[in-house]
Amino acid sequence: MRALWLEDNKIELCEIPQPRKPNEALVKIRKAGICSTDLELVKGYYPYTGVLGHEFVGEVLEADDESWIGQRVVGEINAVCNQCEQCLNGRPTHCENRTVLGIVNRDGTFAEFTSLPIANLHKVPASVPDEMAVFTEPLAAALEIQEQINVKPNDRVLLVGAGRLGQLIAQTLALTGCDLRVVARHKRQQELLTARGIRIIAEEEVQRWRWDVVVEATGSPSGFTLARQAVRPRGALVLKSTYKGEINVNFSSIVVDEINLIGSRCGPFEPALRLMESKQVDPTVLIDDEFSLGDAIQAFERAAQVGVLKVLIQP
Amino acid sequence: MRALWLEDNKIELCEIPQPRKPNEALVKIRKAGICSTDLELVKGYYPYTGVLGHEFVGEVLEADDESWIGQRVVGEINAVCNQCEQCLNGRPTHCENRTVLGIVNRDGTFAEFTSLPIANLHKVPASVPDEMAVFTEPLAAALEIQEQINVKPNDRVLLVGAGRLGQLIAQTLALTGCDLRVVARHKRQQELLTARGIRIIAEEEVQRWRWDVVVEATGSPSGFTLARQAVRPRGALVLKSTYKGEINVNFSSIVVDEINLIGSRCGPFEPALRLMESKQVDPTVLIDDEFSLGDAIQAFERAAQVGVLKVLIQP
Repeated sequence: MRALWLEDNKIELCEIPQPRKPNEALVKIRKAGICSTDLELVKGYYPYTGVLGHEFVGEVLEADDESWIGQRVVGEINAVCNQCEQCLNGRPTHCENRTVLGIVNRDGTFAEFTSLPIANLHKVPASVPDEMAVFTEPLAAALEIQEQINVKPNDRVLLVGAGRLGQLIAQTLALTGCDLRVVARHKRQQELLTARGIRIIAEEEVQRWRWDVVVEATGSPSGFTLARQAVRPRGALVLKSTYKGEINVNFSSIVVDEINLIGSRCGPFEPALRLMESKQVDPTVLIDDEFSLGDAIQAFERAAQVGVLKVLIQP
Repeated sequence: MRALWLEDNKIELCEIPQPRKPNEALVKIRKAGICSTDLELVKGYYPYTGVLGHEFVGEVLEADDESWIGQRVVGEINAVCNQCEQCLNGRPTHCENRTVLGIVNRDGTFAEFTSLPIANLHKVPASVPDEMAVFTEPLAAALEIQEQINVKPNDRVLLVGAGRLGQLIAQTLALTGCDLRVVARHKRQQELLTARGIRIIAEEEVQRWRWDVVVEATGSPSGFTLARQAVRPRGALVLKSTYKGEINVNFSSIVVDEINLIGSRCGPFEPALRLMESKQVDPTVLIDDEFSLGDAIQAFERAAQVGVLKVLIQP
């Protein structure tokens, strides 16, 4: 099959064998999405060799349990052992032996087919089209925030960053009724938010020490600095992006202000599907472009342009 | 009156006027305790000029409300405005206009007298002797952990550091029934813990990724590194010490492991008094030495010696 292969910081299209592993399902990719993590992997941020991609919607072609064959599915990206301490304590996304689709030791979704355990798959409701379902993984990541902290209707919430993930976080936080403001640098980001009635705030207008919850979704040191200054004493500062290298942090001020700093990663798929099915969240407005798998390298170039949100790849 | 004055990183005994402020109580100091923050202030860690000291037990000599006169009291260290956003939202210890006894713009307790608002004072139960009551402030700080997170009986809890504050944290955490282990470097620290049936653990035996709750009470970068490695994915890492300068942190790993990092400072006085009254906590075992106010400089030298826990000063 054809696949987009990453090796030594270079991506190229190549022919590799069909990937179905024992006890797993073979999934034909219908659409796949490029996320910031993919762009970072190409830059060599994490070491990874293999097929890139982890956001997808597909169709099950082969599976031991025949009831899955022909189903339209999305898939959780962490394939887990069910035996380690994290798995046995209800934290499978933190499995100590996990492989991660297109990220850690598991070929991903910029390919004609991918392989995943049945346990990772979720059926897509008929009313959720492919171009919506392909956002299930990042939308689930946005919802992880509310798995971790209670965002209350009366909370003042600041979201710093309105890129690919930030837009989805803004849409899900807005559903809580909280007093949400978003720092969005680019015009298109701002327009998408205001079109949904979500308020933006200029960086220089962000009041210090005011916000009950601050979500940092830029992954930049300047974004972190703004977020840190904005959060009120005893407030929650949610880190929703990974950062290149290390960041200098004044921990004394975190102690003095009793800040609650929370790392946040993969989230729950079923609520993400429910919110799209009920049309309470619409990620399709983020789509800028779509390329065929044969043009995957151009798709990556497009996705890396400033201000571009979601680029899809269709095999 | 006589007082221990800090200016330009030097402490000296001097004569200054009695400190009673309008609408405040004049308190005669009976005993005061030297804490690590005092030692750091002398080193110039924070800028402060004035009378040092914030841990005390005393007797009210003058107050507008005469019912307080003659009462034996301890006092909360943050004097607050009751008008700012933090005060009006139930976070007075984070008052934006606060002065802090012996730390920020308010003369402290290594003196014959100190001045505090009546609202800061708590009456000491008759059965709690002075040498116990003087620990109310640091014991309250230890209890702040449980104001912030739910330490469950089934939790594996690691405490890194068993100094002045660490010993009190160990005693209060042990009351939860949790599976507590303490990293204690010095022999006397270890002996105090084992005498109470609290288990110690060697640094090299601390398992990575295992502990539900980790409390960092060393204030050193190496202590933080150990604590960070020990906490399990989605676990809580409580920072109970301030740190000199900035610390380099790999924030990506905090995101990937979804760590909950919590700064923790001043805590509730009434529970601290209750736990001492009921003898469930006994801080007096920490006392190494006691000096008169006239020997306060020697008291500081003694408190700065390696392995020394609590040194008291009596005017």
